[in-house]
Amino acid sequence: LSKIITLDEIKQVLPSLDLIPIIEQGFIAYSEQRCVMPPVAELTFEDPPADVHIKYGYIKDDDFYIIKIASGFYDNPKKGLPSSNGLMLLFNSQTGALMATLLDEGHLTDVRTGVAGAVAAKHLAPKVVERIGLVGTGTQARMQLQYLAEVIDCRKLQILGRTRGAVDSLREYAQALDFEVTVASSGNDILNACNLVVTTTPSTAPLLDLEYYTGNGLHITAVGSDTPHKQELTTRSLLRADLVVADSCSQCQSRGEIHHALEAGLISSKIPLELGHLCNGDSPGRKNDQQISICDLTGVAVQDIQIAKAVYEATVK
Amino acid sequence: LSKIITLDEIKQVLPSLDLIPIIEQGFIAYSEQRCVMPPVAELTFEDPPADVHIKYGYIKDDDFYIIKIASGFYDNPKKGLPSSNGLMLLFNSQTGALMATLLDEGHLTDVRTGVAGAVAAKHLAPKVVERIGLVGTGTQARMQLQYLAEVIDCRKLQILGRTRGAVDSLREYAQALDFEVTVASSGNDILNACNLVVTTTPSTAPLLDLEYYTGNGLHITAVGSDTPHKQELTTRSLLRADLVVADSCSQCQSRGEIHHALEAGLISSKIPLELGHLCNGDSPGRKNDQQISICDLTGVAVQDIQIAKAVYEATVK
Repeated sequence: LSKIITLDEIKQVLPSLDLIPIIEQGFIAYSEQRCVMPPVAELTFEDPPADVHIKYGYIKDDDFYIIKIASGFYDNPKKGLPSSNGLMLLFNSQTGALMATLLDEGHLTDVRTGVAGAVAAKHLAPKVVERIGLVGTGTQARMQLQYLAEVIDCRKLQILGRTRGAVDSLREYAQALDFEVTVASSGNDILNACNLVVTTTPSTAPLLDLEYYTGNGLHITAVGSDTPHKQELTTRSLLRADLVVADSCSQCQSRGEIHHALEAGLISSKIPLELGHLCNGDSPGRKNDQQISICDLTGVAVQDIQIAKAVYEATVK
Repeated sequence: LSKIITLDEIKQVLPSLDLIPIIEQGFIAYSEQRCVMPPVAELTFEDPPADVHIKYGYIKDDDFYIIKIASGFYDNPKKGLPSSNGLMLLFNSQTGALMATLLDEGHLTDVRTGVAGAVAAKHLAPKVVERIGLVGTGTQARMQLQYLAEVIDCRKLQILGRTRGAVDSLREYAQALDFEVTVASSGNDILNACNLVVTTTPSTAPLLDLEYYTGNGLHITAVGSDTPHKQELTTRSLLRADLVVADSCSQCQSRGEIHHALEAGLISSKIPLELGHLCNGDSPGRKNDQQISICDLTGVAVQDIQIAKAVYEATVK
């Protein structure tokens, strides 16, 4: 019989899961082309404005297939409701039977995105991280910080946000995780002070520009842009990078940072690596701490598959 | 809080619903272009062989949107399980909140398809139905009969099936609905004896051919073919028809009977009508009982929307 797993139950089992290797295995399966993941299905609404995305797929020889439904209803905050919502359905890939409904309200998407940032940092950050830079102050900034703390020893953090209140609130959150926090007043501040930077905003205009970067090497993970229009880095920043890595090369042709640089004709000859190829050792990653690397995360259904399976298995135990 | 509605609960409320006008309203909304229904999303499996279809959409100004998941796992019968399975999710179209999960195991798809056959017969059958012909002996043959009995007075039935056992079993079912049943030995038998014919098979080779038809007019509803490959009528049968009606003109370009005739170049100049245009009175339908009409049903998500809403509303009352 199919199981209903509530957000509370999900939050209870998450701390018991070692999510970094779980998501790494997902990226490896994806980059080794062991996944079946058709293009995202989409439903849009005008009044109130909203969109619904359906991501679905499976890893070959796996016991499950997953359908994830994620919605953004942008007038919800006016009604006192979160704009994001969602659930994941887990089916038996031998019989088609529904095994579980994970009523995660979008939380597992936030978590798997945070974990992907930690995976990127694990494989791409300089050996010695001097200071972490965080652009954006929302839920995803917190997620990134929580999972970065599992793979990076550095506890110095600089944050850049648009409002004082949001910056103060993130500062408190970071301090509770033992970070020593400073506040940046510009993207250049962050680039000068930090050699591991994560951007987590829904910005549609670039916030960071490496054109005049004169530092000693860094890694940037761009998490915010997951659509054709959002953009956090100038396209010429990608041209300056020694290494450009994508979660999904095919998806980055049409969404995220890389697609802007491809459209501008700047990196047409530079075929980006995939994160899975770093996770499985096929690609060596950065050569030294002085290199510049950029990882563009647009979100891949295999992350949903991996986290849904892990939560399900931990819950039915 | 979101509600789980089981198959038993669904079966309990179905008899209380007046499904024919509910599905008619769906076809009308569809043909009046008041629906948002993107193309079907599809996931396929090789081992065991299976496919999963995700149909989703909403009627504009409606309170709900629907996502339907329907799977066919073709090795399931070897394991003692039905090959079809499925569920419907009903969401609030103002907030995105999940309102209900209908664990219908594919039953509501069977029912809404049966009801669509009755809607087609209501608007297209000759005034005086002399005998009903049913091709195919499975679940859908029963569904068609059950809902036809609501709109057609005639209780004479001829059935055509491939195996004696299946024919006998359907005969008993029909007799329990007060039908006087005879058995046909060919498609021509059916065409000679009946002036309302419904085909319900997954055949990929035509079973009925109107080329040499010399009867006094009839209506055929072709229910079985819902893919590019399935076919129950010869393409030249559509050429002989005075009226060709589709549930969805756009979908019938690529699936069902009409698409075979279009591909053969036979009805390129004959633009098919839509069932919704008969339901709302825009099209007058047949002129007299002597005409030949064909209705091609490929299954439209608006039927799922309508039946899911109706079941939900009846259940929460």
